[in-house]
Amino acid sequence: MSDTGTLDALVQALRRLPGVGVKSASRMAFHLLQNDREGAELLSRALHEASSRVQHCERCHTFTENRICDTCLDEGRDAARLCVVETPADQAALERTGAYKGYYYVLMGRLSPLDGIGPRDIGVQQLLQRATDGVVQEVILATNFTAEGEATAHVIGEALQRKGIGFTRLARGVPIGSELEYVDLGTIAHALADRR
Amino acid sequence: MSDTGTLDALVQALRRLPGVGVKSASRMAFHLLQNDREGAELLSRALHEASSRVQHCERCHTFTENRICDTCLDEGRDAARLCVVETPADQAALERTGAYKGYYYVLMGRLSPLDGIGPRDIGVQQLLQRATDGVVQEVILATNFTAEGEATAHVIGEALQRKGIGFTRLARGVPIGSELEYVDLGTIAHALADRR
Ligand SMILES: [Zn+2]
Ligand SMILES: [Zn+2]
Repeated sequence: MSDTGTLDALVQALRRLPGVGVKSASRMAFHLLQNDREGAELLSRALHEASSRVQHCERCHTFTENRICDTCLDEGRDAARLCVVETPADQAALERTGAYKGYYYVLMGRLSPLDGIGPRDIGVQQLLQRATDGVVQEVILATNFTAEGEATAHVIGEALQRKGIGFTRLARGVPIGSELEYVDLGTIAHALADRR
Repeated sequence: MSDTGTLDALVQALRRLPGVGVKSASRMAFHLLQNDREGAELLSRALHEASSRVQHCERCHTFTENRICDTCLDEGRDAARLCVVETPADQAALERTGAYKGYYYVLMGRLSPLDGIGPRDIGVQQLLQRATDGVVQEVILATNFTAEGEATAHVIGEALQRKGIGFTRLARGVPIGSELEYVDLGTIAHALADRR
């Protein structure tokens, strides 16, 4: 091992972050070691804590530190509505509109055959069980309006149809090709109202 | 603390990385927790190891895990030449040319009055001590050809002149406004040969 083995290992580890190449990783490592060792230790502990404590909610599959997440424990919501989103960030975008008061199912991903992500990986079977619990009346498909998000909505919609469960899709007020977390609140609220 | 407190803390900690905003940090946290917990633990350990083990070489100020770095311990180099660079990445770029066989002094930064970085922060005093040790005959100023790099070379050059120590600057074959670590090896090699 060279006299900078731990530094080299840090640069390699930083490259595990999405969108970070070798140049960015080197700059990040240099910045932390030269100017912000406190930040390095803080990030080290935060990674370990989150990695060991964060699990998936048994009801909606989103991230939580408990067995059931706060949203699923919120009894003030309309149990007849179940909104399907790709990620916690998408759920947060819907929550910020204040236009939806039901529960969620978070796929934690999207169908992506090229990346080997199939229905099992996004928990379609558990979603169907949840949707057929006798309480849910309407499933709102709020996956992103990207090619993969549309394909995901299509596959889930067909499965729901076979089970005879009503579902809607966010209205196409959401601009085609965009991702929910970047859409302005008003557009999302309109798309919710116009769901079909 | 909410049921995702450790997740929120991770997003905040990731923002300590240079160039990472809240959206990037959220995506990084989601990716690590959903797809790469092994990467999260690896990065956690790498940060702690590097932060606790990496120190500055007593002779040239670069990062090393020892008291003196491997380059400074290399007795096959020409002790009459001392090359001043801003960062270890710049030093690595010079080494890759194979055109320089002397020693280095790594400023670990550059003068930047706007950021409050003065001569003391980049160790100009220690550089002068090293340059006046009676062995060094020529100091090669290889700071970047940016405004801050030029200002740094100017300030160090004036200090060396007052001490009567000879110095050169990399030839302007290096394109103005660029940073060494991104310049092709041939250009750097020519700039070394044409130093004035
Ligand atoms: Zn939940
Ligand atoms: Zn050294």
